[in-house]
Amino acid sequence: MSLPSYTTVDTLATFQKDIEAKLKELTSFDARIPESNLWEAAQYSLFTPGKRLRPLLLLSTAFSFGVTTEKALLPACALEFIHTYSLIHDDLPCMDDDDFRRGQPSLHKRFDEATAVLTGDFLLTYAFDVLASSPLDSKMQVKLVQTLAKASGGHGMIGGQMLDIISESRSIDLDFLYRIHLGKTASLIQASVEMGAIIANVDPVTYIHLQAFGRNIGLAFQMNDDIQDAEESVEKTTAVSLLGLEGARERRNAYYNTALHHLKAISTPLELLEFLAEKMTFKS
Amino acid sequence: MSLPSYTTVDTLATFQKDIEAKLKELTSFDARIPESNLWEAAQYSLFTPGKRLRPLLLLSTAFSFGVTTEKALLPACALEFIHTYSLIHDDLPCMDDDDFRRGQPSLHKRFDEATAVLTGDFLLTYAFDVLASSPLDSKMQVKLVQTLAKASGGHGMIGGQMLDIISESRSIDLDFLYRIHLGKTASLIQASVEMGAIIANVDPVTYIHLQAFGRNIGLAFQMNDDIQDAEESVEKTTAVSLLGLEGARERRNAYYNTALHHLKAISTPLELLEFLAEKMTFKS
Repeated sequence: MSLPSYTTVDTLATFQKDIEAKLKELTSFDARIPESNLWEAAQYSLFTPGKRLRPLLLLSTAFSFGVTTEKALLPACALEFIHTYSLIHDDLPCMDDDDFRRGQPSLHKRFDEATAVLTGDFLLTYAFDVLASSPLDSKMQVKLVQTLAKASGGHGMIGGQMLDIISESRSIDLDFLYRIHLGKTASLIQASVEMGAIIANVDPVTYIHLQAFGRNIGLAFQMNDDIQDAEESVEKTTAVSLLGLEGARERRNAYYNTALHHLKAISTPLELLEFLAEKMTFKS
Repeated sequence: MSLPSYTTVDTLATFQKDIEAKLKELTSFDARIPESNLWEAAQYSLFTPGKRLRPLLLLSTAFSFGVTTEKALLPACALEFIHTYSLIHDDLPCMDDDDFRRGQPSLHKRFDEATAVLTGDFLLTYAFDVLASSPLDSKMQVKLVQTLAKASGGHGMIGGQMLDIISESRSIDLDFLYRIHLGKTASLIQASVEMGAIIANVDPVTYIHLQAFGRNIGLAFQMNDDIQDAEESVEKTTAVSLLGLEGARERRNAYYNTALHHLKAISTPLELLEFLAEKMTFKS
């Protein structure tokens, strides 16, 4: 693996600072509703140590094609809202029943279940509000709403979570697992790259390559997650339980290589995306 | 109260048929995900006996200003998706814990809690997908997304539900109750009228009157709900427990009169909205 240039690391660090600041601004306490826990709860869930992977993918894509952070920052935050709401709802006792998230009590433990349901709904709704308020022309805004809604909806993230729940009560094959990974994880990561491409107004061929890059790197990311999980004793069906550790590693690497192949097909230099792709696939 | 003309009843019945058909089409079983319960669960919740009040308000507003049903039908369905998701999440054990909804088992009783959480998320997300796919120009679509997201978000419906939950553990005054009503009920009803007005591209003065009509008729509707509830023995704080039955009736009638006052200020004949307003306020 090559060392990233100073510029790459520096640019991503700047993005990250911009994302943190904007997320904080968007969810800052609202004096008009002093009794409501929504903002406090949203911040509690948003500001756990997180990588901001999806916003970074969006900003990196847009930036590589010459778009300023300012134009792309609100859509980037919308992605983090969707990702965070999905974690909040996923942790609920009736879902994965996780008492901890990133080392601190999950939202329904810190507050209560009702607050967790409503805060999830709030962040989900707010994502579309923020998209429709971003400083872009209306055609672009509509495309962003469509892309995010489809990626996070019944054929995307929510669809994958539904299949995931079903998979707990029956044995599943590799095809079923692939569809879970595609829906639950890859679709929102793919949308992150797509939304950057929409804002950058790239040509159709570049768009298709970026889309394929996003999907494959999302699948590689989830594969790597399954590989990590194999070291702990996870009970549910994962890529490792179906393919073995070596098989899962091979599959992960194949997704990664396909993703990179699509990046290389684009003439614009995309080292930010290359760097993120490597991080996502081989993080341990 | 005046009898509605044959045309009014007939037009609303046609709207209702169009709404039912489109809701069914939008949530019909998807062969691509045969295992997923999402569509079945969405239909279970959508097709309980319901009045489709919010879609009817949107279609009636748009129609009164010459817009065809075809143009306004998808946004109308988006409203019903938002309303239905809010009922599904509201019925959850951690929220109002209702085992029945409109005389049949609530979704988490018929399926399970995880399916209810995800189906709510699905309908919420789908609402914005449908808005962004409606046959309208992009500027209008963006305005609709903004209006719906704000009305159903942290300062609107979800905000009202949060206050409602807080109100269960403390004593509240009339001002607090007003803010619950405004958020939980009136904001989405107001948005229904506003969205019709956006699609009809009405002038700014008419828009303000329609907005005020929507807000006041929403408040009258909720007041009437509290009055109905007073006949059963409801434990929580309602308008009736704070104002007495007569006081609540007076307040309801005042909202109704204010709503009608704003309708009358508009030169276009609005008998569909007048008819719906009367139904909403005095239904028993």
